[in-house]
Amino acid sequence: MIVLRLRYIDGARNLIEEHPHLVIDKQDNEKLYYEDMFEKAQPIHIEIGIGKGRFIHTLAKQFPNINFIGIEKFDSVIVRALEKSIDEPLPNLKLLRVDAGAIPIILKDHTVERVYLNFPDPWPKERHQKRRLTNRRFLKIYEDLLTENGEIHMKTDNKTLFDYSLEEIMFYDMELITITRDLHNSDVNCNIMTEFEEKYSKRGNKIFKLTAIYKEKK
Amino acid sequence: MIVLRLRYIDGARNLIEEHPHLVIDKQDNEKLYYEDMFEKAQPIHIEIGIGKGRFIHTLAKQFPNINFIGIEKFDSVIVRALEKSIDEPLPNLKLLRVDAGAIPIILKDHTVERVYLNFPDPWPKERHQKRRLTNRRFLKIYEDLLTENGEIHMKTDNKTLFDYSLEEIMFYDMELITITRDLHNSDVNCNIMTEFEEKYSKRGNKIFKLTAIYKEKK
Repeated sequence: MIVLRLRYIDGARNLIEEHPHLVIDKQDNEKLYYEDMFEKAQPIHIEIGIGKGRFIHTLAKQFPNINFIGIEKFDSVIVRALEKSIDEPLPNLKLLRVDAGAIPIILKDHTVERVYLNFPDPWPKERHQKRRLTNRRFLKIYEDLLTENGEIHMKTDNKTLFDYSLEEIMFYDMELITITRDLHNSDVNCNIMTEFEEKYSKRGNKIFKLTAIYKEKK
Repeated sequence: MIVLRLRYIDGARNLIEEHPHLVIDKQDNEKLYYEDMFEKAQPIHIEIGIGKGRFIHTLAKQFPNINFIGIEKFDSVIVRALEKSIDEPLPNLKLLRVDAGAIPIILKDHTVERVYLNFPDPWPKERHQKRRLTNRRFLKIYEDLLTENGEIHMKTDNKTLFDYSLEEIMFYDMELITITRDLHNSDVNCNIMTEFEEKYSKRGNKIFKLTAIYKEKK
């Protein structure tokens, strides 16, 4: 089994090295130059921990006016996203094979407008909490990285990690814009505008929304 | 001006009385029988304060397996929604011309699965707060009206009313499922599922999401 696994990673390594225009396999401590990476100078959004890459690949297709960087540390994982990029290369998407901890070394401060964290490892053991991607240590890294009003978007199905993340965000005195504990049933997914909503929204007013339920009586 | 306004309301009144199959103009204190109102027995969602009715009319078209009741107290307002129903009658949508305060009298307890409150009157004066549709008096009315796990969905562009509503909801010890302070830019509107998200979601796991920004340094 070990042989098979190593062989698979070997294949991954080769594929990564063969496609330097799609995946940046950062080995030095120099800052990245977005100008060399992307055809157009436009806002940068990054995803940390891209898994098989469906999310960032779909986003990059939908939003050609944003440049996306998908960060993933494991060869054996990033290779799945790389296969998507080989099948369908997008000028506004680059993959970056580094550990999230290397971000402050290789990405310039205040250059990213949005950070996506999708289903990050919950690291359930208390002694591993510094590895959680919403630990205050990482919140500091994102703060340095983000432009003014830059946003962090996090999704998870792990309630413990979610509650921990809320606590860290409050501790860090950030402002929460959206919270949902049931995204797929929250029907924010198919918002229907009222006449007022359209009018006020066009004036530039922000729209607030809440959903609430009554607790079961004990 | 008064003459014009009265004349307009007169027209509205006539239109309402001419279409009893589309708009129920409740004059007595009897409970409504949904069986008489709708072709099919299916879950009931209501909107309190329907304005010109675009929201509930669009919802009713999109969700034929839900019966919708649009509640509005003003003749001169409900008539605009009525015009939509005349142009395009929907078997699962009825309008109901009553004051929200009459709900406990004419709707049976524990029969409604969802209550929509869209851009309710903020009633900014402190002495009018009992009229706000998220005042604890109304939360009690909705609690009696809703089935188990029934939901309240509220949208507004009025920050003061939103914060007041959150306080009342917390006071009433309800559970908040979703909060957003910038619905149209929250990108929950175009959720892209990751591979993990699809897998976990299919297993029945709820998906949590948050968006946060850093506060401006003073």
